[in-house]
Amino acid sequence: MTAMRFLDACRRKKTDATPVWFMRQAGRYMPEYRALRKKYSILELCEHPEAAAEVTLQPVRAFEVDAAILFADILLPVRPMGMSLTFVKGEGPCLSKPIRTAQDVARLRAFNPKEGLGYVLEAVRLVRAELEGKTPLIGFAGAPFTLASYMIEGGPSKDYRNTKAMMHGNPKAWRALMQKITQVTGAYLSAQAEAGAQALQLFDSWAGQLSKSDYDAFVLPYSRKVLKAASKTGVPVIHFATGTSHFLESFRDAGADVIGVDWRLGLDEAWKRIGYGRAVQGNLDPIHLQLPRPQLKKAVREVLKRAGGRRGHIFNLGHGVLTHTPPDNVRAVTEWVHEWTAN
Amino acid sequence: MTAMRFLDACRRKKTDATPVWFMRQAGRYMPEYRALRKKYSILELCEHPEAAAEVTLQPVRAFEVDAAILFADILLPVRPMGMSLTFVKGEGPCLSKPIRTAQDVARLRAFNPKEGLGYVLEAVRLVRAELEGKTPLIGFAGAPFTLASYMIEGGPSKDYRNTKAMMHGNPKAWRALMQKITQVTGAYLSAQAEAGAQALQLFDSWAGQLSKSDYDAFVLPYSRKVLKAASKTGVPVIHFATGTSHFLESFRDAGADVIGVDWRLGLDEAWKRIGYGRAVQGNLDPIHLQLPRPQLKKAVREVLKRAGGRRGHIFNLGHGVLTHTPPDNVRAVTEWVHEWTAN
Repeated sequence: MTAMRFLDACRRKKTDATPVWFMRQAGRYMPEYRALRKKYSILELCEHPEAAAEVTLQPVRAFEVDAAILFADILLPVRPMGMSLTFVKGEGPCLSKPIRTAQDVARLRAFNPKEGLGYVLEAVRLVRAELEGKTPLIGFAGAPFTLASYMIEGGPSKDYRNTKAMMHGNPKAWRALMQKITQVTGAYLSAQAEAGAQALQLFDSWAGQLSKSDYDAFVLPYSRKVLKAASKTGVPVIHFATGTSHFLESFRDAGADVIGVDWRLGLDEAWKRIGYGRAVQGNLDPIHLQLPRPQLKKAVREVLKRAGGRRGHIFNLGHGVLTHTPPDNVRAVTEWVHEWTAN
Repeated sequence: MTAMRFLDACRRKKTDATPVWFMRQAGRYMPEYRALRKKYSILELCEHPEAAAEVTLQPVRAFEVDAAILFADILLPVRPMGMSLTFVKGEGPCLSKPIRTAQDVARLRAFNPKEGLGYVLEAVRLVRAELEGKTPLIGFAGAPFTLASYMIEGGPSKDYRNTKAMMHGNPKAWRALMQKITQVTGAYLSAQAEAGAQALQLFDSWAGQLSKSDYDAFVLPYSRKVLKAASKTGVPVIHFATGTSHFLESFRDAGADVIGVDWRLGLDEAWKRIGYGRAVQGNLDPIHLQLPRPQLKKAVREVLKRAGGRRGHIFNLGHGVLTHTPPDNVRAVTEWVHEWTAN
């Protein structure tokens, strides 16, 4: 790993090898993480900058990845906005008193990230100090749609019933909510960059559930504003969602430097549609990390083949690392990509 | 509703109005259905031809839909193949002893649908007799991938871990399994047509979870065979899956007369990619059936606008009717589409 490989690829500059990192590279599949989780809940890990920094660094120590990504939860901003957040075992996040009306939206507070999420910014500073410039650190935030959907549904959703009901049935409340989240998220990302994050990723995990016309009308304008605010910091900005094939051009037009592609679409076709003026990140199917070595090798080769050796490819998964992934496979894939793409 | 409207649209013939039916139009959102479910479990409803026929007819009596769809569960074929099937409240179907090895596959029995699923065929005959030719009846089956994934995972899955593991790790076992399911499914659909089904729909509900290259290599050849067997009966054949935008052309090439489109992609763009030589079915977002009337009206108009008044549009949802849908909205949408598209 060289310090600049990842950042150069974000800018589509020539690199000595294709950079590699993995979404959710810090997590349950790592024994080091599970050990820490015995002492801390997820929220406690996030709230203690030393613990969050430690988790962030675990995969950097274990594998030759070319970037660290801050350990945090995308839902942290809902707390300083005025909602309570808990994690229910086996069910995921649970948000108190879901947002359903214009009055609910009005009660949400825009907040100063230095006050409301100071512990995240402190974790950024700690990680940067530990990394000593050897590995770049990616900060991140959930995109307005993904945050809004959690705030409206109160947790994960299969059909986004209440979210779509507000979007179409009460567009004024929807726009007020999205504006508030947009402001908060833009400030939060900027503060992360100011604290030392050297790249920023916006996660719109479930945007692919929306139709193209809903995405264009109700989501794209807000994601664009957040990405613009993030870009103003001067660091490269990555935008990721799953299942975006039906609105990939809109997603590109939201404005990030690097477009994250999930595993569904071949990277060759995706990049052609995105245009070679942007860098792309992806897109090994996360499940492939659980295949026997020969099949895993084949799948990695396939991703690289489709990337076509172009400048601006960042190797990653098409979504986050899954719980049952053998860490050795993560290590092996990192090494293969570096070896096979070395100049 | 006229008797031929739906069947003519499948063949892209001129119709007096755009035909309408709804995937999962018989189900929990209907009080008549919930009343029957107090007496029968889902499997009992399927197993009793009179009950299955009754459920099939409920939406035909309640709304002016242009087609009936047989009430049955897509997993029924796994039982005569040798697996047991139960429904666990809140968790969905549960299949005993999931298929994981070539030996497991070898134990599965191909069966004669007249013996193994005679009760479904009897329901087809009962429904046809009741409908007296006034409304056409659609038979259906789950596609090989969807059936295989349930058989391998043992139930619903978030990541299709074991399915993809077999696909890539043991392609010989995968092919043997898919061949067996293909044979059974082709025979099952043919038997439904022989018993009186006037159209056939193949549901590959979760195929959109696969990458385009996995779909093309591991699924398409088998779906194509099933669709070919179904087409040989002479009735029109519909092929539906969700999230197919990244392999829509492959999905079309599988060979059905009518391509079902989910809500994600605009029907104008979808049809253009599919080609106007095929009929299309879709694609109102099922959630929209829960919107207030003005918004619902707007959403229905949008679907019709995108269909562009072309021959061969069958109005439907982009997936099945959801549990909390007001039946009155189903009735209203049916009437609007008929009224707005009447020649």
